[in-house]
Amino acid sequence: MDQIKVFSPGTIANVSCGFDVLGLALETPGDVMVVKKIDAPLVQIIHLDAYNLPTDPEQNVAGKAALAIIDDLKLDYGFEITIDKGIHPGSGIGSSSASASGVVFAINQLLDTPLSEAQQMHYAMIGEYVASGSYHADNVAPALIGGIVLIRGYGPLDYLKIPVPNELWATVITPKIPIRTFDARRVLKSKVLLTDAIQQCGNLAGFIAGLYTANFGLISRSLVDVLIEPQRAVLIPEFYALKQAALEAGALGSGISGSGPSVFALCQGESKAIAVKTALNEVYQDLGIPYEINVSKINNQGVKILE
Amino acid sequence: MDQIKVFSPGTIANVSCGFDVLGLALETPGDVMVVKKIDAPLVQIIHLDAYNLPTDPEQNVAGKAALAIIDDLKLDYGFEITIDKGIHPGSGIGSSSASASGVVFAINQLLDTPLSEAQQMHYAMIGEYVASGSYHADNVAPALIGGIVLIRGYGPLDYLKIPVPNELWATVITPKIPIRTFDARRVLKSKVLLTDAIQQCGNLAGFIAGLYTANFGLISRSLVDVLIEPQRAVLIPEFYALKQAALEAGALGSGISGSGPSVFALCQGESKAIAVKTALNEVYQDLGIPYEINVSKINNQGVKILE
Repeated sequence: MDQIKVFSPGTIANVSCGFDVLGLALETPGDVMVVKKIDAPLVQIIHLDAYNLPTDPEQNVAGKAALAIIDDLKLDYGFEITIDKGIHPGSGIGSSSASASGVVFAINQLLDTPLSEAQQMHYAMIGEYVASGSYHADNVAPALIGGIVLIRGYGPLDYLKIPVPNELWATVITPKIPIRTFDARRVLKSKVLLTDAIQQCGNLAGFIAGLYTANFGLISRSLVDVLIEPQRAVLIPEFYALKQAALEAGALGSGISGSGPSVFALCQGESKAIAVKTALNEVYQDLGIPYEINVSKINNQGVKILE
Repeated sequence: MDQIKVFSPGTIANVSCGFDVLGLALETPGDVMVVKKIDAPLVQIIHLDAYNLPTDPEQNVAGKAALAIIDDLKLDYGFEITIDKGIHPGSGIGSSSASASGVVFAINQLLDTPLSEAQQMHYAMIGEYVASGSYHADNVAPALIGGIVLIRGYGPLDYLKIPVPNELWATVITPKIPIRTFDARRVLKSKVLLTDAIQQCGNLAGFIAGLYTANFGLISRSLVDVLIEPQRAVLIPEFYALKQAALEAGALGSGISGSGPSVFALCQGESKAIAVKTALNEVYQDLGIPYEINVSKINNQGVKILE
């Protein structure tokens, strides 16, 4: 096999109660990537989209990840990577992770899968670092393996796929305004109240237990973020109106996707997720801000081969 | 039925990564209580133990809980409560919760069980308040219903019994020195680092997932407390020596039980738990501090009827 085409999904990191430790994969949107072996041990990046992302492989998330693999595995050949981004960069649904994870998955396939799952995450994190400036797995892990993934800790990376109830859907509105992860991190205070940390712990534990038992009531009560959302909400136009509209339309919970500006809602069943889309649309339709809304089942597979 | 005898178990609250949100019940030690109907709507307390605890019902955890039930249910009779404490008061293994939970369970049985589980917890918390000065369920919930209980939040009380792997055992050393919950709370800083809160969240989520999947490796890696233990360890003589001895003897993890001074270790299997007992004993045997060590399977039942 000299060429492979993959779909790499967008992801929701944090998921309200799981700041920096939880992420989940979406069915849509995602990036479509074609990776082709080339004779020289270098990387060529072609972007089919109009986002004007860097094509210097060292500055490109997919390029950087590919270069790291070529280096470590001492390959005597390289890759041409054609990227058609379906995920708006800087939108808070794992745009950079999707490209980084997609290329690592694709190269691993082209090499007859020498890389373990954990090694693939390692290289995807190296790629994502180019965009976010930190090594985080809460987007790359769900992008690679799908589902809802808990990142217990780093050093070494300790992650676990949590079971996803079959009826769990997500609705995500993506305002097309830029928020850089770097800026979203900068607004966060370095200290939090112990009482808030305890509440967050209780909610995260409740969410995990709710997923294991498909207890939607518990999932709903647990989808609360007392630590981060109050600090970041100001970065997102009409955040609280979106959240309220989602909850009134029957969402289990709603919060900031990653570091924003996307706002997600989790729902029990497709029809609720569609009703939430309608409600979110009503909040944004007259604001004059470009946006898109995606409705998606939780993607339990992660990156998938198209051709 | 005019009289009932119950055993009410000691409990480990916090369980390292679950400060204020987790508690588990022990098979031993525990309190033995006899509750007998009497004609007048009042409460009489008899202590068979030598701990010199208050016998004024308003000042006694069991008495206060019983009075609250008599008041709310407008009973025209009362209870004589005979308590033989097997749990050293102020030892950090839920002494007050055991007495409060035991009496509430016993009275509910004498009344032909009119109280729901949540109502029983309500009254047990009212009793425990007398000793701790705060309404907490992380000891009373496991004492009442057994197992490992997550307290997601309060208002209203939201709790959930988490499955306990069959092989999970606890070893608990109780130095017989007093630490009042009030003092143990006072040493805690009101703010914590966000990075520490995230680590605690990851560990708690990992512990919950480990319990659902009986993954002892994950349980072990998750039994880490970065928030509270570093602040409270100073209150317990040789805490770090105890912890190190437990881990070297094969414990999954070790930490402060409740607000101390008891120190617990969780183990996979009885023989490991006994080996940990030996190791803890070696640390304490020449210190000149009175202590006891209990080895116990996790108690999945809670309060139980003896006669």
